[in-house]
Amino acid sequence: MAAETSEVQRAQEQFRDELLRAGVLVDGGSPGLYLRSGTFERIVAGIDRLVSEAGRSHRAPVLHFPAVMTRRDFEATGYVGSFPDLLGSIHTFGGGDREHRRMLAEVEEGGSWTEHLQPSDLMMCSAACHPLYPTRRGKLARGGEVYEVFGQVFRHEPSVDPARMQTFRQHEFVRLGDDTSAVAHRDAWVERAVDIHRSLGLDVSTEVANDPFFGRAGRIMADSQRDEALKIEIVATVSSEDRPTAITSANCHQDHFGQSFGIETAEGRVAHTSCVGFGVERITLALYRRHGLDVEAWPAQVRSLLAV
Amino acid sequence: MAAETSEVQRAQEQFRDELLRAGVLVDGGSPGLYLRSGTFERIVAGIDRLVSEAGRSHRAPVLHFPAVMTRRDFEATGYVGSFPDLLGSIHTFGGGDREHRRMLAEVEEGGSWTEHLQPSDLMMCSAACHPLYPTRRGKLARGGEVYEVFGQVFRHEPSVDPARMQTFRQHEFVRLGDDTSAVAHRDAWVERAVDIHRSLGLDVSTEVANDPFFGRAGRIMADSQRDEALKIEIVATVSSEDRPTAITSANCHQDHFGQSFGIETAEGRVAHTSCVGFGVERITLALYRRHGLDVEAWPAQVRSLLAV
Repeated sequence: MAAETSEVQRAQEQFRDELLRAGVLVDGGSPGLYLRSGTFERIVAGIDRLVSEAGRSHRAPVLHFPAVMTRRDFEATGYVGSFPDLLGSIHTFGGGDREHRRMLAEVEEGGSWTEHLQPSDLMMCSAACHPLYPTRRGKLARGGEVYEVFGQVFRHEPSVDPARMQTFRQHEFVRLGDDTSAVAHRDAWVERAVDIHRSLGLDVSTEVANDPFFGRAGRIMADSQRDEALKIEIVATVSSEDRPTAITSANCHQDHFGQSFGIETAEGRVAHTSCVGFGVERITLALYRRHGLDVEAWPAQVRSLLAV
Repeated sequence: MAAETSEVQRAQEQFRDELLRAGVLVDGGSPGLYLRSGTFERIVAGIDRLVSEAGRSHRAPVLHFPAVMTRRDFEATGYVGSFPDLLGSIHTFGGGDREHRRMLAEVEEGGSWTEHLQPSDLMMCSAACHPLYPTRRGKLARGGEVYEVFGQVFRHEPSVDPARMQTFRQHEFVRLGDDTSAVAHRDAWVERAVDIHRSLGLDVSTEVANDPFFGRAGRIMADSQRDEALKIEIVATVSSEDRPTAITSANCHQDHFGQSFGIETAEGRVAHTSCVGFGVERITLALYRRHGLDVEAWPAQVRSLLAV
């Protein structure tokens, strides 16, 4: 197991180094932090277009989320309970000239200057669809609602694997309604997502999966999520052939967010929600892995679909 | 003065409320935090295209930055000294099951659960071009270098003014080289930027300006920045006709970043840097203010230029 792990890690480091050498990514100075090239972003834009087209029949309102959300809404998501190790809290300075002088002295001495900061009312956004739910409190439209959302995610999980970035984006279609429609939305999108990935030449498969719930209690939550098949991941080779990477994920949240944010169906029942989330950075990396680091040499059909 | 201020604030609140009612922005739950509509983002994409085209002759490498950067690089920028009130530090949880239980109990009691967090090695990015400099340590190419960068910025300055968001983007062209070329880059871009804004029907003017340096010492730095005319802002009406808003800014940093990050010209002198930064959210808001909230009713030439 240890040998296998170190084999996987070597493959991850190797792919990361190839990406850095080719200038696809630039090292941001911390594991999982990268500056992205213009070509990388043109591929992301191409994927975003394909995903939007696949969901056009929803006629869904489109929302783009900032990288942060309020602490109050973050607490309501239950994320502190489930994934405390991944969260990011934003702390700021509220002092005057005197406190500033003290803090600066700490900076200059290499001291712990952050002791002069206080928690702000903001957190890093941990899941792309989180900022949507607080805006949907109350009763949904009859028949439920679908939103197309572009979210930014922070996860504190430094890694040598270029597929495990500390900040990344997810392009989602989120369904809010009754339980049947939530499950149907998830299932329909698994099929659509497989088609999109295959049209780009990716060799993908689907897997029942679980989120990385924290600690001992988390193991039970993970088992339960798997037993109920709430999370389906679409996986492909990115850094390592021995350990495929989830590049898109389709999830039933049951009534978790409906309860947490007081969202109800038109009939007055607690809303169920589901979402499909395309990990656009990971899909981009899967394409580099599949078709090579020279985008000019990619298959014509793939380049045409992505307009790169 | 107080009466004038409250007049400006009323105008800001009024414009914000109009944007929220029209669904251009959605309230994110904290002053200056918004979810952005799909139409808003299509306008941003149009502005980005125009800016890229205006800089095409640079043949500049393109880099897209994440919303965070390393604490080490952040400290080197000098931002803690100049703008401590605006920064954001990211704190994370490194405990085990026992610490997690204690922290969760605080969350449930509405206590100060963030005491269980530690400062991570990451900060929110405070200026769009900051992540570039640590990647350019050492000697520049002969004749200097230009980069086109897409940056994300966090500023802790909650405001009712929709033009003062806590998170926003800047699209920049950054020059690194000798002092003469840095000043020339800045000046050439002021003219180009004025042309771009006027082509979109915006009534803009240019002003010598200063950054909001903190505290008593900051006043001297602000005066010096003005005296040397290091910062030129392009201003337009956004929220208030009485107080125009800087929508684009062109800045000479002299050798500040060259010194801080050990960047040298090919001849071995400390590099000077300058940048033009287009505030794409503010430009978008200026367009809504100028042409109205119904994009379909905007002048045909403006819609055509932006492809909206």
